[in-house]
Amino acid sequence: MTQNALGKTSVTLLGLGAMGTALARTWLAAGHPVTVWNRTPARAAALAAEGARVADGAAAAVAANTLVVVCLLDDTSVDEVLAGTDLAGKDLVNLTTSTPAQARGRARWARERGARYLDGGIMAVPPMIGVPEAGGYVFYSGSRELFERHRETLGAPVGTTYVGEDAGFAALYDVALLSAMYGMFAGAAHAFALIRKEDIDPAALAPLLADWLVAMAPAVHRTAGQLRSGDYTEGVGSTLAMQVAGTPTFLSTAEQQGVSPELLSPYFALMRHRLSEGSGEEDLTGVIDLLVRRPGT
Amino acid sequence: MTQNALGKTSVTLLGLGAMGTALARTWLAAGHPVTVWNRTPARAAALAAEGARVADGAAAAVAANTLVVVCLLDDTSVDEVLAGTDLAGKDLVNLTTSTPAQARGRARWARERGARYLDGGIMAVPPMIGVPEAGGYVFYSGSRELFERHRETLGAPVGTTYVGEDAGFAALYDVALLSAMYGMFAGAAHAFALIRKEDIDPAALAPLLADWLVAMAPAVHRTAGQLRSGDYTEGVGSTLAMQVAGTPTFLSTAEQQGVSPELLSPYFALMRHRLSEGSGEEDLTGVIDLLVRRPGT
Repeated sequence: MTQNALGKTSVTLLGLGAMGTALARTWLAAGHPVTVWNRTPARAAALAAEGARVADGAAAAVAANTLVVVCLLDDTSVDEVLAGTDLAGKDLVNLTTSTPAQARGRARWARERGARYLDGGIMAVPPMIGVPEAGGYVFYSGSRELFERHRETLGAPVGTTYVGEDAGFAALYDVALLSAMYGMFAGAAHAFALIRKEDIDPAALAPLLADWLVAMAPAVHRTAGQLRSGDYTEGVGSTLAMQVAGTPTFLSTAEQQGVSPELLSPYFALMRHRLSEGSGEEDLTGVIDLLVRRPGT
Repeated sequence: MTQNALGKTSVTLLGLGAMGTALARTWLAAGHPVTVWNRTPARAAALAAEGARVADGAAAAVAANTLVVVCLLDDTSVDEVLAGTDLAGKDLVNLTTSTPAQARGRARWARERGARYLDGGIMAVPPMIGVPEAGGYVFYSGSRELFERHRETLGAPVGTTYVGEDAGFAALYDVALLSAMYGMFAGAAHAFALIRKEDIDPAALAPLLADWLVAMAPAVHRTAGQLRSGDYTEGVGSTLAMQVAGTPTFLSTAEQQGVSPELLSPYFALMRHRLSEGSGEEDLTGVIDLLVRRPGT
């Protein structure tokens, strides 16, 4: 791979949305030679002023360096942009948001074209790039060799976490964590809705809410242990039966506060379903099994 | 109020479920004289061995001390247990799980009977009682004077947080935080379901999941600020339009992994609804307004 006099690997970056631009900027600031290309050229011009080389097409950009990073809108854009490029011998790193199946398909596609492949799932928003203390990182999966070779370069703008040879795992971990986050945001939305008509400052609730969520998040370790052992009663604090018994208070409170229960009721319904299967002494973990489609259903 | 030679306030406790028993035990260990009563006497007998005085009825237990704590199954049980007791001049602290309306009703009811009233919402499970490092606490609302008078006694088994003169607020804060927690648990359940059919150890996902949830929980501060100002674009990182654009990846991934989207889709539906109202540049905060029933709807 190409390096400059300082031993910094040269990077080609295709796609200069907010994320791509943030990545290019931090690589440039870290001394990496960066060749960029973007479908609409305005953003590339801005980066040229910061030292980026602007290729006059995707093919030329790919030809410029061994390490080719793509950060595009979606998997279809990856097809379109890389269509006329020669990927033979390239180290292709795809940071485009994908499903696991898309990432696996793209890995085969890259292999067929003679490229090594690494898929990435970005756990950060653009303002977190180049700000190590912001705690963002990228999940990588696919070629371990490629990851090790470029670990330093990839780690310059944002942290890295390698999660396996299966190219689909980065996307899967990414979606899993963000899905959990949306669940937490949904819960917080319900909480704020409950106090909306009261004389309560949302900023008085927020620190209590944040602290409580932070205190309860480690419960996922107990869940993981129960999933491994198959014993969902392991270390249970408040049993499913006790928790289901508490749900009418939650639903009545929502009703009293004029709040729709639609963000809570699907989870409560699964809790009741699991309880009806005779699992009252378990933790809440059985709900997970109800979410996973059984063969033939 | 009655105190012993060590200046420790005497406590009457009605209701010896797992929570009541844990409370009685820590008060006894901290040197408080404790009088207990429970509908089924077996648990009271166990506490007698640890130094509790066992009253032969609820009325006698209430008569024994000024500070009367009740920790029963539900609001109906409070009615039944306190029916034949004389509450005049008592400091009644109700830790029974209630809705805000039940707590407010109980406060009026207590006042009519000549008692001061404090309502509590317990943010802990029994094993956290008497274990300060476990971080549990009780929300209190109602008579501030009563709270201040008994702050030390009430704080002996578990932390205390006073949230206002409105007797319903403790229950409201309690339900709000626990509702948010269920949302987080629902999100985590979806995340674990996504990897269920893969060769991924749940214990490998758990620390990443816990760290991510802990990192994202402080977003509620931004939400609170936006609710106060009414400007839902304030400090937005990823806009509603961008986030809605990402939802098909979440739903396709669930489909690919054979996971029902039922715990995520209601939140995504509200995000799309809000986007359809022309709020694409906002944060996710507008979802909260959609949850709150409008007058006449």
